[in-house]
Amino acid sequence: MALIVQKYGGTSVGSPERIKNVAKRVARWKAKGHDVVVVVSAMSGETNRLIALAKEIQAQPDPREMDVMVSTGEQVTIALLSMALLEIGVSARSYTGGQVRILTDNAYTKARILSIDEHNMRADLKAGRVVVVAGFQGVDDAGNITTLGRGGSDTTGVALAAALKADECQIYTDVDGVYTTDPRIVPEARRLKTVTFEEMLEMASLGSKVLQIRSVEFAGKYKVRLRVLSSFEEEGEGTLITFEEDKDMEKAVISGIAFNRDEAKITVLGVPDRPGIAYQILGPIGDANIDVDMIVQNVGHDGLTDFSFTVHRNDYQKALNVLKPVLEHTKARGIQSGDKIAKVSVVGVGMRSHAGIASTMFRTLAEEGINIEMISTSEIKVSVVIDEKYTELAVRVLHKAFGLDQAA
Amino acid sequence: MALIVQKYGGTSVGSPERIKNVAKRVARWKAKGHDVVVVVSAMSGETNRLIALAKEIQAQPDPREMDVMVSTGEQVTIALLSMALLEIGVSARSYTGGQVRILTDNAYTKARILSIDEHNMRADLKAGRVVVVAGFQGVDDAGNITTLGRGGSDTTGVALAAALKADECQIYTDVDGVYTTDPRIVPEARRLKTVTFEEMLEMASLGSKVLQIRSVEFAGKYKVRLRVLSSFEEEGEGTLITFEEDKDMEKAVISGIAFNRDEAKITVLGVPDRPGIAYQILGPIGDANIDVDMIVQNVGHDGLTDFSFTVHRNDYQKALNVLKPVLEHTKARGIQSGDKIAKVSVVGVGMRSHAGIASTMFRTLAEEGINIEMISTSEIKVSVVIDEKYTELAVRVLHKAFGLDQAA
Repeated sequence: MALIVQKYGGTSVGSPERIKNVAKRVARWKAKGHDVVVVVSAMSGETNRLIALAKEIQAQPDPREMDVMVSTGEQVTIALLSMALLEIGVSARSYTGGQVRILTDNAYTKARILSIDEHNMRADLKAGRVVVVAGFQGVDDAGNITTLGRGGSDTTGVALAAALKADECQIYTDVDGVYTTDPRIVPEARRLKTVTFEEMLEMASLGSKVLQIRSVEFAGKYKVRLRVLSSFEEEGEGTLITFEEDKDMEKAVISGIAFNRDEAKITVLGVPDRPGIAYQILGPIGDANIDVDMIVQNVGHDGLTDFSFTVHRNDYQKALNVLKPVLEHTKARGIQSGDKIAKVSVVGVGMRSHAGIASTMFRTLAEEGINIEMISTSEIKVSVVIDEKYTELAVRVLHKAFGLDQAA
Repeated sequence: MALIVQKYGGTSVGSPERIKNVAKRVARWKAKGHDVVVVVSAMSGETNRLIALAKEIQAQPDPREMDVMVSTGEQVTIALLSMALLEIGVSARSYTGGQVRILTDNAYTKARILSIDEHNMRADLKAGRVVVVAGFQGVDDAGNITTLGRGGSDTTGVALAAALKADECQIYTDVDGVYTTDPRIVPEARRLKTVTFEEMLEMASLGSKVLQIRSVEFAGKYKVRLRVLSSFEEEGEGTLITFEEDKDMEKAVISGIAFNRDEAKITVLGVPDRPGIAYQILGPIGDANIDVDMIVQNVGHDGLTDFSFTVHRNDYQKALNVLKPVLEHTKARGIQSGDKIAKVSVVGVGMRSHAGIASTMFRTLAEEGINIEMISTSEIKVSVVIDEKYTELAVRVLHKAFGLDQAA
């Protein structure tokens, strides 16, 4: 008998029929003798409906009141799922974030969990009940309702699993696991049975949007056994996210090919190659609340260097405007930029101990005539920026070059 | 400077535009220097939407989970109204029932208020904020969400006014006060400037559905000054509900004509006129959870009497079925019944000290050829049961006979 925390997203609970299906799945786990805690999101579309309603009143809704408002979405789902469980004879009880007591800081709309009171949930589990908890929400120490920000239900699931020392946290979603790359681009893409925490972090941040990054970080910090499964399949093992390289297993060198078409690149040309220049350029960008992803600076010549970075496309024009006075100030030669780029990454913890990954990647792209505009590497990934139009081609040839289309 | 509690119903907050209008009205009271606590219902239609959703899952939704669900309706409104107030520069903060702490018993879907913690509201009022409270809801002492039953927002308003010792509780609705009768039937019907608590009780229970009965009882118990106003008129004094006969004022004998077409009458004919017979008939009715309104029994002849009562039309068939074995048992001669009846009542505290009210009523009806089927009287009302088809005629002629169409 194990203690399982299951999290179902908005699509999985998007209609009364789907909620009934979730109840049946929970009942099957319960029938096997497991204790089950279920975390649910708002029904798909509901959060957007509430936000739209708020914006009819205030263009920039007050954050405290916004949280009072949108937290009702999950509150409706916990009631409906508890009813669905009771209807099929499974004892169950719903909890809002405040009722559990999921204590957070008071940063409305993006609060962080400080602690979780497991007392009431333990009592219900002991009494044989399924505990149904509203994801995405909590309360601050003054009793104000807070939310964790969009997608925060994953974080609630992992945090509850950590607090209850659950045997496994299962994230049910509309995909049945983590793939070697996007199956819409490469039909041969395979589901990974396991992926390490670090690989998952890279896959998520690079655009394989299966899990919220924060929930994965949280799982890593508290060593929560995390599994991604499909809520639309009866059976299936999904993908298990592990936190250590499994030394007994013949681990593939490369786990997957990630890609991202949300970014724009900016290069400041011919800036003086002296200490402090990176700060002079990126300081104003940070002050304007623009997140920077890749940063590349090569060795300079004749006291000058080029400084490149990428930002989200939504921030592209804003970043260019912020840089205008900076150009003046740093006496840079000019700016070269573009938002028709893609970032493609080869990810795998195995590459730590294998040479030649980068060269295989560069050769494969060169053979297809794809020019590499920027390169950035970490312990477990190599990322390149290329022209956006080559995205699918690059992903396909890399997927094949690293043997990802062959059974593990 | 006064402390005012204002309550706005579902129609008054039925759209973002209407919520903005409520905010403007609250702002005007605030601008006059008053402290304002606002109680709101769910937006019109929302509670029904939520109930329908629950019924797709469970034909008889679990009461605890039902309360978790429907309480979200008011939670959305408090957030929206607070946003609307902030948007026009009025400092405001929302409270759910649990956040105030409106403590109730744990009778889900029809809970009763036990106590109200005024601490946080006082602090906000002192800080110059408008306090916006979700009507209809509370928490039990274990932190479970409860609701007061439909229309319970009026009760929340009155209870808050009692707890805060407010100078006045204003119930904003879609009518601008209490009328001498329904203006749709008698165009000459006048708005009453004042009505006593007891008259209001009779008017409400007799079908002039302006206020929830429970809230009026509550106001009476705690001597809350209660006023009914229209939320769709800029100005207007509405109707003040008073709790003592005002001796300085020339009080009209009759305040209004109430009527009700929701009842059915049942007469058990020729039952033995002996002690316990009323219980033998009404005991099984009560056991079947059927509410009885009027009960009439006249003196008997030859050891037999007729026993009549009225029930809600929805319970008519059920009541007849319950009575079948009773007929057998009591050796009654038979049953005479019908659901095409109306109850028409003349209401007024003034009739306590005036003779002849009943005779004026009976004469007026007789002149129009309207037969009276049952009569029941109390200190401040005379009610008759007549054929439903004469309802409008009876109300019109009685309104005129008692001079209600003339300016007070």
